[in-house]
Order: sequence, then C-alpha cells, then structure tokens
Amino acid sequence: MRMEEMTWKEIENAASGGSIVALIIGSTEQHGPHQPLGTDTYIPLGIAERVASEAKLIIAPPIAYGYYSQVRSGGAGEYFPGTTSLKSSTLTALIADVVEAFIKHGFKKFLILIGHYENYPLASESVQNAIKSSNRNDIRALIVNWWELIPTDVLNAVFDNKFPGWEIEHAAIAETSILMALRPELVRTKEIRDESTRRLEYDIIPAPTEIIPKKGVPSRVSPASKEKGERLLSTVARRITEILREQFAR
Amino acid sequence: MRMEEMTWKEIENAASGGSIVALIIGSTEQHGPHQPLGTDTYIPLGIAERVASEAKLIIAPPIAYGYYSQVRSGGAGEYFPGTTSLKSSTLTALIADVVEAFIKHGFKKFLILIGHYENYPLASESVQNAIKSSNRNDIRALIVNWWELIPTDVLNAVFDNKFPGWEIEHAAIAETSILMALRPELVRTKEIRDESTRRLEYDIIPAPTEIIPKKGVPSRVSPASKEKGERLLSTVARRITEILREQFAR
Amino acid sequence: MRMEEMTWKEIENAASGGSIVALIIGSTEQHGPHQPLGTDTYIPLGIAERVASEAKLIIAPPIAYGYYSQVRSGGAGEYFPGTTSLKSSTLTALIADVVEAFIKHGFKKFLILIGHYENYPLASESVQNAIKSSNRNDIRALIVNWWELIPTDVLNAVFDNKFPGWEIEHAAIAETSILMALRPELVRTKEIRDESTRRLEYDIIPAPTEIIPKKGVPSRVSPASKEKGERLLSTVARRITEILREQFAR
Amino acid sequence: MRMEEMTWKEIENAASGGSIVALIIGSTEQHGPHQPLGTDTYIPLGIAERVASEAKLIIAPPIAYGYYSQVRSGGAGEYFPGTTSLKSSTLTALIADVVEAFIKHGFKKFLILIGHYENYPLASESVQNAIKSSNRNDIRALIVNWWELIPTDVLNAVFDNKFPGWEIEHAAIAETSILMALRPELVRTKEIRDESTRRLEYDIIPAPTEIIPKKGVPSRVSPASKEKGERLLSTVARRITEILREQFAR
Amino acid sequence: MRMEEMTWKEIENAASGGSIVALIIGSTEQHGPHQPLGTDTYIPLGIAERVASEAKLIIAPPIAYGYYSQVRSGGAGEYFPGTTSLKSSTLTALIADVVEAFIKHGFKKFLILIGHYENYPLASESVQNAIKSSNRNDIRALIVNWWELIPTDVLNAVFDNKFPGWEIEHAAIAETSILMALRPELVRTKEIRDESTRRLEYDIIPAPTEIIPKKGVPSRVSPASKEKGERLLSTVARRITEILREQFAR
Amino acid sequence: MRMEEMTWKEIENAASGGSIVALIIGSTEQHGPHQPLGTDTYIPLGIAERVASEAKLIIAPPIAYGYYSQVRSGGAGEYFPGTTSLKSSTLTALIADVVEAFIKHGFKKFLILIGHYENYPLASESVQNAIKSSNRNDIRALIVNWWELIPTDVLNAVFDNKFPGWEIEHAAIAETSILMALRPELVRTKEIRDESTRRLEYDIIPAPTEIIPKKGVPSRVSPASKEKGERLLSTVARRITEILREQFAR
Repeated sequence: MRMEEMTWKEIENAASGGSIVALIIGSTEQHGPHQPLGTDTYIPLGIAERVASEAKLIIAPPIAYGYYSQVRSGGAGEYFPGTTSLKSSTLTALIADVVEAFIKHGFKKFLILIGHYENYPLASESVQNAIKSSNRNDIRALIVNWWELIPTDVLNAVFDNKFPGWEIEHAAIAETSILMALRPELVRTKEIRDESTRRLEYDIIPAPTEIIPKKGVPSRVSPASKEKGERLLSTVARRITEILREQFAR
Repeated sequence: MRMEEMTWKEIENAASGGSIVALIIGSTEQHGPHQPLGTDTYIPLGIAERVASEAKLIIAPPIAYGYYSQVRSGGAGEYFPGTTSLKSSTLTALIADVVEAFIKHGFKKFLILIGHYENYPLASESVQNAIKSSNRNDIRALIVNWWELIPTDVLNAVFDNKFPGWEIEHAAIAETSILMALRPELVRTKEIRDESTRRLEYDIIPAPTEIIPKKGVPSRVSPASKEKGERLLSTVARRITEILREQFAR
Repeated sequence: MRMEEMTWKEIENAASGGSIVALIIGSTEQHGPHQPLGTDTYIPLGIAERVASEAKLIIAPPIAYGYYSQVRSGGAGEYFPGTTSLKSSTLTALIADVVEAFIKHGFKKFLILIGHYENYPLASESVQNAIKSSNRNDIRALIVNWWELIPTDVLNAVFDNKFPGWEIEHAAIAETSILMALRPELVRTKEIRDESTRRLEYDIIPAPTEIIPKKGVPSRVSPASKEKGERLLSTVARRITEILREQFAR
Repeated sequence: MRMEEMTWKEIENAASGGSIVALIIGSTEQHGPHQPLGTDTYIPLGIAERVASEAKLIIAPPIAYGYYSQVRSGGAGEYFPGTTSLKSSTLTALIADVVEAFIKHGFKKFLILIGHYENYPLASESVQNAIKSSNRNDIRALIVNWWELIPTDVLNAVFDNKFPGWEIEHAAIAETSILMALRPELVRTKEIRDESTRRLEYDIIPAPTEIIPKKGVPSRVSPASKEKGERLLSTVARRITEILREQFAR
Repeated sequence: MRMEEMTWKEIENAASGGSIVALIIGSTEQHGPHQPLGTDTYIPLGIAERVASEAKLIIAPPIAYGYYSQVRSGGAGEYFPGTTSLKSSTLTALIADVVEAFIKHGFKKFLILIGHYENYPLASESVQNAIKSSNRNDIRALIVNWWELIPTDVLNAVFDNKFPGWEIEHAAIAETSILMALRPELVRTKEIRDESTRRLEYDIIPAPTEIIPKKGVPSRVSPASKEKGERLLSTVARRITEILREQFAR
Repeated sequence: MRMEEMTWKEIENAASGGSIVALIIGSTEQHGPHQPLGTDTYIPLGIAERVASEAKLIIAPPIAYGYYSQVRSGGAGEYFPGTTSLKSSTLTALIADVVEAFIKHGFKKFLILIGHYENYPLASESVQNAIKSSNRNDIRALIVNWWELIPTDVLNAVFDNKFPGWEIEHAAIAETSILMALRPELVRTKEIRDESTRRLEYDIIPAPTEIIPKKGVPSRVSPASKEKGERLLSTVARRITEILREQFAR
C-alpha cells in the first residue's frame, strides 16, 4: 500500500496487476499556531489511506515540499518561519521525474492528490508533460484537489452556512477539523483563536505587515471539530473511490 | 523533533534557540526481494531519531527520491521496477531550495544525512551553493554518509572479517541488519538468499542482463541479524552525537 | 504611455519621475468561436489604457503568451488549435528578466496586470524573485487579477444574480461583454451560442472528449452586452486607480 | 491576418488551408533620442503586414523582448534605460515553446522575421530544435533578417554610396527611414542629430563610457527620409513575397 | 603560460601578479575536406601563444566545443559529420562557470578569444553575467574576434582585393592560410578545391541539400598560402598585444 | 586518432567503419605543489593514446573542466586557486550535447574515460540520457575510471602493500608516478613533500582550514617514480584494450 514499504517484486506485480499509483503533493507550510507544518501532506495521505482500503492504491512517497505559498490563499506562508517552498522549476522537474519513472515501471493509472492549493497548476503541467514524453496513449492520470470534492450540502453543514471560499480556508475550519480526525495529537487546540486581518483583493509584493495575518490564519478556526473532520474525510474518500471506479473501471 | 509535526512558532523558537536541522536525503530504490524501496530513507531517519534524543535536532521532511542508482554501487537499481530516481539537476535544485528556506527561517546548523550512496556529491554541491547564495558566514553544514562512521573493528565484527567494500554493500548485510533493528516487519526474511553476479570493474551502458544481479543484491545478505543492526545503529548514532557536540559546541 | 512608443530619454525621465510600469501578462488562447485568441491580452490592455488617463502609467510591451490553459478554468484551451502556451519555466524566466530590467532602468513601482487566470501564481513567483535579486528594498509591485476587483453588486447586476464563479467565466459573459466595449469589431456576435458540457470536479489527463466543451466555452455567453462590458471596465479601471493612489501615494 | 484577432476555428481552417505563420522577434531597445524602443518590432511587423496582402500569412503575436544588445552592433543598448532584454536561455525557450505549439496546431510553414540583429542565432537554434522535437519531416521554416534582403543598388541609393555596414546601422538611416514610412508620428525628427563615437574592433566588458555613443546612435541618421524608408520597405516586402512563393510553392 | 601545465601555487602567484587569463572559445566543426575539425580552436590558440611571448598571459584550457554552426556563416556545419556543437544554454553555463572560477582565483583581467563566429554573442552574455554575479567592479574582460583585427590593407593584400566578407570566410583563404602557418601538417593541401554553392540571403530550416556546399567550403580556398597565414597571424598577434597594453596598462 | 586533427570526411569514414569514440572527462584542479592543474586530463589522454595504437580509437577533444572537487577525495580542490569546476547541471548538459552529436555522426561505440573521481556519476547520467534520447538500441558506451582497472597485485607492488584507498590518492603516488612517465617535464619533483592532515570521516561546509591539506595533497607522494607510473600505465592500457575487444568484438 505504501510504496516505500514494498519490494521491487511487489511493485512489479502491482504494476502488471493494474494498481493505481497515488502521488501526494503536499507542503511544508505554516498552518497557524495550532496546526503543524505538515498539514497539507497529512490530509491527502489520510484520505489516500482510506481510499486504499477500497481500491488497489499504491501510495508513493509523498512530495512534502510544495510551491510558494500565496499571501492571499496560503495565509502568507512565505512570511513565516517554517514555510519551506520550491521554485516552480524545481517542483515541476520533481513531479515529472517521478511520474516518468512510475510509467517506466509499468504503471498506467495515476491519482495525483493535491494537499496544497498552489501545487495544482504545476502538477497538471508536469503530469501532462511526463505522459507526453512517454509517447504512450494508455496512461491516464486524475488530479484531485480534495476540497473540490465536497458538495454544497456538506459545506453548508460544516461551515454553518457561512463558507468563506476555499482560498482563505487555510489552517481554518476544514483543515483543522480533518486533522483533528486524523492526527488529533498534532492539533494544539489551546492555540486556536480566531483572528481577523485586512483582506485585499490584490497582491502587494513585498507584503506589508498589515495584510499578513498575525498568526497565519486568514479565517475562522474555532468551530472546527473532530466530527466535522470525520464527515469531510469520509465524504472525500467515498467520492474518490467512486471516481476511481468510474475512471479506471477496467 | 519532526519538522512536519511542529508549528511555525515552534520552528521560530527552535531556530533562535540554536537547533540543528537534520535533512535526510534517501531514495526510492530496489533493495532486493527482501527489503523495501524506502530502505535508504528509513535508515538515516532511524539514526536521526536516536541522535535526536541526545541533541537539539529537528528532522526536516526527508527527501525520499534520490539520484540515479549506479549499476555497480546500487545493485543496478535503474533496471528494476520501483527504483524512482531524480536527474542531478532536479535533486540539486530541490536540496538548494530547501536549505535556502531553512537558512531564511533562521537556522544556522545543518546535518545532512545521506542514505543513498549516489546522493552524496550532489548534496555537497547544493549545500555549498545554498550557503554561498545566503551571503552569510555563520552557517555550518555537516554532510554525513552514515556508513563512513563505522570503525574497522565494528566492520570486522559485523562482516566476520570479510567486508567487501561499501559500494557493493547494497541491500546486503549492513542495510538488512539495520532495518531488522529498526523496522523488522518490513524485512521479508524468507526472501533472503545470497546470489552472485559477474562483477565488472567498469560500466556498460545500457547494462547487459548478465551483469545485473538477478534479484538486485550484489553481495551476501544471509549473515544479517537484528543484533548486528543494533550494533551498527548505536555505533553510528553515538558517533554523530559526538560530532555534533564537537562541531556545534557553541 | 506605451513603452514601445517612448525613447530611452523619455524612459529615463519617467523612471526618475516616479512613473509606474504596467506589465500585462496575457495569453494566446482559444476563447470560443466568437472571441479572438488575444482576448486575455486585449482586456488588461484596455483596462490599463483607461487607468493611464488618471495615473502616471507606462504600459510595457504586453506578454502575449501565457501559462498552460487548464481544462476546467480555461475552457480546455490546450485541446484547441490556436492556444499557444508557455511552460512554467519559460514564463517565469521571461517575467523575471523583464522586471529585473525595469528595476535596472530605475523604476520602483509596478502594476502587474493578469489577463489569464493561470498566469497569476507564476507572475507572483517571478516578481518576488526579481525584486529579491535586485537586493533593493524600495521596490513595490502590485499584482492584479482584474476580475477580483469587481464587487458583488456589480457581479449580481451583470450576471443577473447567477454568477457561476470565475474559473468557468472563460470566453463567457464578462470577457465577451468587455471585449464588446473595447474592440466590438473583434467579437463575432453571430457565433455566440450557449453550450453546456459535463463538468467534473477533478481533472483527467489526457482529457477525454466528453469533458471538453465542443466550442471551448464552459458557461453562458448570450447575455453579454456592450453595456455590461462598459460597466465592468469602468468599475475595474476606477478601482485600480484608487489602489494605485493608495499604494503609491508618495 | 493577426493571430490574436482570429478565433480558434479560423486558426484551424488556416492551418489546414496551408497558411504561413509569421513570427516576429523584435526587441525593446534604445534607438537613439529620436526613435522609440519598439523600433525593432514595428519594422518587421510593418513588413509582414505588406507581405500579408500578397500571401496567406498569419502574423503571430510578436515577441517584443529580444536578446542582449551588443555594444558594437546595438548602439550599446544594455547601457541605456529602456533596453529590456532576455537571457539566451529565456529567449530560446520562449521561441521553442511557441513554435512547438504552432506545429501542434497543424501549421507547417513558418516565416521567422527578425527585427533585432542579436536575435538571429537564437531564433535559428530554437526553430531547429522545435522542428526536431516535433519528429515531423513536413515542416519548413524560413528565417529572414530583413536587412539582408536589400540589394546593393538599393543600398547605394539609400546610403548615397556610403553604406557603413549593418552592424552599426542601429537607429540610423535605414531604421529611421523605414519608421518614417511606417509610423511617422513615432519619429522625433527634432531629436535627430549625428554623433560620432570612438569605435573599437573588440569589446570591453563592462564598456567604458567613452566607447558608448552618448545618444545611442553609432552612425549617421540625418539623411533619413520617408521616401528612402518607403523604398526599403517595398524592396524587402517584394523580396519576401517572392521567397515565400518560391519556398512554399505548393 | 598554459594553465593546465601550472600548479596551484603558480596560479596564485600569477593572479596576484596581475596576469591576464586568455580563454579560447573554439569549436569542433567541419572545415572542408582539407582542414581539421579543430581549426577554430587551433587558430586562437596559435594567436594566444604568440601574444604570450609579449604579455603576461595565462592560457586557460580552451573550450573546444562551440555553438551551433549556422548554414550561411559556418559552411552548414550542423549538416556534416564531425560538427559537434553545444546548445546556447550549455555554452553560456560553461563559460560562466569557468569565468566565475577564474575571478574567485583572484584574476581581474581577461582576454576572451573567439575562434568560431557563432560563439561571440554567447561569450559576451556569459562574461557579462559572470562579472555581474561577482559583485566586483575591478574586473575587465576583452572579447576579441581575431578576424576583426585585420585592417583593410592586409585584407586587400591577402584576398587580392576580392575579400568576400567574413561570414563566408569559413575554411577558406584566411583560415587555411593561418593553419598552414601554424600547423602545416594538418592541412590536406591535396584536398583543396574551390567549389561554388547557391547562396541565399535567408535561412531555410531544415536546409535543403542544394544550399549546402558539397564539401563544406562556401568560398574560395586555393589562393591560401603559408605566407598569407603568417602575415595574418602576426598582424593579429601584434594588434592584440597593443590592445592588452592599452587596456590593461596598470 | 585525435578528432580535432581529422576532417569531416575522415570522421564520416571512421563512423561507418566502426571506430570507437574515446571521450575524456578530466578537470582543471589543484594537484599539489608538484603537479599541474591538468593532471586529470593528461592521464586519461595518455592512456587513450596507448590504447589507440591497438584499437580503432578516435579521441574526441577532452572535456578539461570537471565537477566540483570534494574536500575528502579531491584534496579540497575548491579551496585552492586554480581549481576551475563546473556545476552538475553544466557538466551533464555538456556531456549530453557532445555524445548526442557523436551519435548523430554515426558512431555507435563509446569509451568514456574519467580522469577525475567526481565526474563519474554525472558522466553516467549524461551518457544514459544521451543514448535514451537517441531512441536507438545499437549504441553501447563503456565508462571507465582508470584506477579501478588496476589489480591488487599491481597496487600492492606500487604502494608497497600500503595502498590507502583511491579517494585520497589525489596528486599522490599513483597520479604522480603516471605523470612522471607521461609528461616528466611537468612534475616539479623538488616540490614533492609528504604532508599529513587531520582526516575526518564526514564533510564540513564550509571546510575549516585545519582539515584542508596545506599543500593540497592528502596522502604520501614521495615514493612516486617513473617506473611505477609506467607499470600503472601499461597495466591500464592493456586492460582497456582487452575490454574494448571483449565489448566491441564485432
């Protein structure tokens, strides 16, 4: 299930047996005073582990460093200690090298699970180019931003009808709830406090202090709960399982 | 201790408090029919965790994909399914981006722990260039190949006076023993069998089948044991602890 | 006003006089059967020209080729003839070279006007790195996605309370309306027809035919009008003028 | 005719109908106190527009930023505000990405029109590599430096038998005359003054002040006239039309 | 005198004593049936050796592979076996790495001697960037295309008043004569034969057979002689000696 | 025999006649006070010349600049004036460009002769990638580190049974002896003196003065002799001749 735990013979069998490779592209990024830097890696990993119980999924070693954190979507990650990001040229090369190797191993089905908003376009470019350079037409990759799989009714329930938009849902209700469900020991619940920051509709580079959330959290966190996290997790895992069935039927 | 489990505030405190960042550069590479692909990441991680009990070490998310496996030192990794390697340009960019970020966070002391023979020169180049581009003169990095820290008497004991040289100690006695000590559930002991391959003193590209070890193991494995692994591990961890004390005294 | 029309002496004067450089990052991308490939360049250019009547703006030669068009936000641009995109490594190098040169000329104030959704993160990375490599602390750049400046009441009016979200507003009501106001001769009104496509909440690579909008337009176009375009344009231009005043006061 | 004004359907038709793509590679470079920075883009664009009336030419969005200006051929562009140049790695990537996309669209015939002396070798490399990586053998590209198409008799007439060589014909009689014919409103005729600079037969880096023409013009300008420009323009446009007919007969 | 023959102590002394580093950038390129592939390296090396008897010159290991050979200036090198060229990105990186190292060694004076027409702009870019990245203002580099140092009277004498222009002087009278003077054993005089090829004033990519000189020599060779070579060589060497004296006086 | 001395016709014949291209990858690196910077290029060149008398070998222009010198294997080259090294990205690009060109010329057999320990993994990567990108399966390359071809009995004789390991045999007995045999005039025998340095089993970056050998020689030199050099040389040349016969039989 975890590629790093498998031997080469097991990989050979998995590839010829039609297994799906799940590649997680996370980040090492500030997630407020209450969540760990690895949040964007833990969440897709937790999702993938649930999906793996239903589908033939091999989880590759996650990419734990992501693309630059944007001020407005990432809680201004780059301005906080701990946020450790890659240039676009580095991240695209990394994803492409890895996916090309998986194709060489014989895998044909891919689930790219994005844990960090900013990674998505680069993952798309890299996977397209890796497939193109393989000169094969039997490869199919799905790219999933887990948060996009949550339907409106679940959002309304979790956010009490006040969903603020995913761009500012950083280290906030959804991510905190999910981590409470997955790795409760890593959430510093005592540090949870809602803060508010002036929010601009454009970027200033370099960002002046007044538009950076003091603690790194751009929207409300306090309503987060393990139950909400469990609901989000199971919703997403179930939806991915359906998608895999639909897309990789045969 | 694990950077991904820490919050940005904890990182900020660690950096100003003089903590050492341990960066592990492993691989996803065939290690015979008895060891998992992640062996080169598990071993330095296990070492770092032991060292961390004695020193102020923060273990950054390990780099789990390494440089191309050489036929003669890596058991011909690139010719086996599962071996997932990076171009030198990718790996050097990745290490440099990450180390530059750590320096920006305020860290000054680095322990680069190599788990995969081939990573060493690229790690050295990248770390040199990251330090150079920081324009600072208070940064110090140590690069450690764990196997180089094992003194002759321990080698002789572990290898029964028949140490074959580190280049072909791939997935063999030392690595297998250490993994038996660290993650026994991941060693397929039933699959251990000694094989012998014609060994050349030069490379042929592409490698013809007859010089690739059939199972990916270029030298003897069967004498491996948990006790030997424990001895190697504690020897290395103790030596690194001494080195850190000596080099990062103040 | 247009940098390409100015002489070097005029540039020298403008730089020392505190002018703002406006850099437009557009695209050459399919915009349905009714809009030209240059839509994402014409719109920010039209906006900049209006702003320029109120502010000391020098419009640099627009970057007319943008980043890969996403299937779900760009109407599947890459699958249509005409869409001519750059790799992330190319676009970031291009923006960085250009902004570094502007800083060398003596300019300190920048307005980066994005015309193509996908360009935004790369523009942010490049501008950050160009400023960083200048080793100066008196440079300020604003990055503006024009669509983000439209307040809810205007959106509601223009979309008749049925705003579908910006990601799928490609070649649709907003862009078509604005082009009708700016360059009416380039809108093939006879070709306007609303189509509907199955919309997924994840990506499939390569995209199967059934999820690509047949004509390249993922949402409604027919309500577009010159009046709506004029309203959007003047709203955005006015807001940018305010922002420039606020951010580049002195 | 202008690609940015066409829709994707029109591009599709043009490609299947055998149209020629004209790609202009200009510059943003000082051209003395009397000519605008865009001179090297305006001239090939003006030429292409004339040719387009005789041939099935689609003019792609011009590349408006060129390669580093040489001291001796470019009037020392890099030492003047306004000159905004690209590294060779950036420009070759840009041209290659764009030409590869055009080939993917179905175009087979290319006219690369160079407006800036320094761009020529990089255009040649990029186009060769783009064609090579398409793995097709039905692509043909012509690369034209417009000034090379002017026969000796026209040169003698225009330069009154004192043609100084093209390398120093920067912002001088030929370029100024052509711009007078194409865009008279952009030529600051009052600023025209002949200057003379010490001219070396080698380069000094960094260039000392005394070898940089004070106003950026390395040779005589004052004999420039609209009539000369018209003659040059029509000579070049006619010759390109012939060449296209000869090379792209069928 | 030859850097490769010196020890590090001798280099240290030379650097502190104000020696000039001569870096030759040649090629491995077809030079007709009568001249060897190394012609573009042998000639500047021969020149440098003569200059070295008059000036404190240290000749670095020559760069023996150059930039792509152009059809019209290089005798269509890329279409002949033997021509072994570098991408612009490779050659600029190579020159920059080497010059940056020389600056780190303590050298401040550079003579870049170009042997291959196409290398010149890339050498200029690389040397500019290497100097810029050194952040020092006491470095001076001269870039010399040897053929540009030959005055008209010598040209007229050597070419019998029929000088065809340097672009097509490839493997022809000048280069052949000089090699006859420098390395007579390498000139296959029996293979010298004048050929004539249709010469276009633009490029066709890929080049059709009829515009490629059959033997790789685009202009007359037969008047070449050792005496002419000696005259060219001594003219150039003398002029460079003067230039070095003038530019590196102190 | 030396590619630079051959004409394109001779190359064409050699390629079709099945000749082997020998590519030497050396360095410009400190080799103590007694050996020249070019040692790592002279030695493989000397070897290749001997082999060439027995095999159809064409020696390409050697790559005279190598990869960064490691502190522990290279005598701390980077800390000495004269050592002139390339980034891994530069060296891999250079080797790949060159080998791709040789394959295009029609050569199918390659002998890559490494003169500098650190070049080996990069040579392997580049050659693999060049062969892969040729899409041909009739290419075979051998990569030879000359020192690995010396059997134990010769080592014992040359080192008087005290062989210290190849990593620290830098500018020491073997290299000095061989250069005495090949180019005696370049060995400053008077400068030979044995020094001893504290040797660590890990790296410190930047390296503190006390671990850098003062003269750049990490192990004993004084027993070096021309006779030993001759023995090493002839052993290696004979072994390579055998290998070529075995690997390129037909």
